[in-house]
Amino acid sequence: MKTLEDHILKEGRVYPGNVLKVDSFLNHQIDVSLLDEMGKEFYERFKDCKITKILTIEASGIAIACAAARYFNVPVVFAKKTENLNLDNDVYTTRVSSYTHGRDYDVTVSRRYLGNTDTVLLIDDFIAIGNAAKGLIEICDQAGATIAGVGICIEKGFQSGGDDLRKMGYDVMSLAVIDSMSEDGKIKFR
Amino acid sequence: MKTLEDHILKEGRVYPGNVLKVDSFLNHQIDVSLLDEMGKEFYERFKDCKITKILTIEASGIAIACAAARYFNVPVVFAKKTENLNLDNDVYTTRVSSYTHGRDYDVTVSRRYLGNTDTVLLIDDFIAIGNAAKGLIEICDQAGATIAGVGICIEKGFQSGGDDLRKMGYDVMSLAVIDSMSEDGKIKFR
Repeated sequence: MKTLEDHILKEGRVYPGNVLKVDSFLNHQIDVSLLDEMGKEFYERFKDCKITKILTIEASGIAIACAAARYFNVPVVFAKKTENLNLDNDVYTTRVSSYTHGRDYDVTVSRRYLGNTDTVLLIDDFIAIGNAAKGLIEICDQAGATIAGVGICIEKGFQSGGDDLRKMGYDVMSLAVIDSMSEDGKIKFR
Repeated sequence: MKTLEDHILKEGRVYPGNVLKVDSFLNHQIDVSLLDEMGKEFYERFKDCKITKILTIEASGIAIACAAARYFNVPVVFAKKTENLNLDNDVYTTRVSSYTHGRDYDVTVSRRYLGNTDTVLLIDDFIAIGNAAKGLIEICDQAGATIAGVGICIEKGFQSGGDDLRKMGYDVMSLAVIDSMSEDGKIKFR
């Protein structure tokens, strides 16, 4: 998606450890017009899939999930992260390792808001090694929900997450795929 | 706001400790149509204030902040919560006690995204004793930003946060103010 790539080239900052900061428009400050455009792209791709829920994970997935959900006219459910699992029979739960933050956390979704009649579009802002997305897939499996596809704003194509999901058979749509980036600011898209 | 009050009456659940769960449409699952309506209400009230930024706090403030920002056509900035402050000169920071979670955390906003030329509308989903809002005010003070007002979805009117801010001189708009609630499901609005 050209607009997103332009934003990444103009405003993205690359840090050691393959960290790409796009917090001027996606992760800290949010450009709502750009989000709308991205939401519409996801809709164009998945509009015939009879999506009933958009599932994402807090915190930075929430904004893009809501932007997409407006087009689909379905609710967003955001999975919650917790370091100390509140033992509650009413939740689906799985454990996720955070690549960015170097620690593990539990991810939970209430059984009230996801079930076996749902057809879900997973949405997140980033995919790197894909642990968050795999966690959301595990949650959907526990719920018996159908996964129609996975919509990602920025895929780090030099890490395995996106391709792992494709190999698992999921329809992954990434709006920008970065093949390489370096700290002097060079970013190459697929 | 009638629509919001109806949603609270129909779907809200009251738990011990004055906890009101509205996670079917606001805090876990998100009703994007209702969010749009709420965002528009904030716009109608504050549209002449020359707002340049909407400031909120992760995670559950993000969705309503984005809904409002679409009407104002300005960026959202969401303050980040961290339990271990990353010492970074590039952030404004303050410490907030969480009433809901019974612990303290640091709240940070990058200096890149808030400054003394900004006129800010603070938005959050809930106000109880008001610690999160007071933290955001402290962040704005550090930035030298002007606060045009505070938009809250649900105010617990039997706790002091909303009135504390009014006494401090802030223009607080709460879309629903709960005067009392009980575990048998009785909720009274102001």
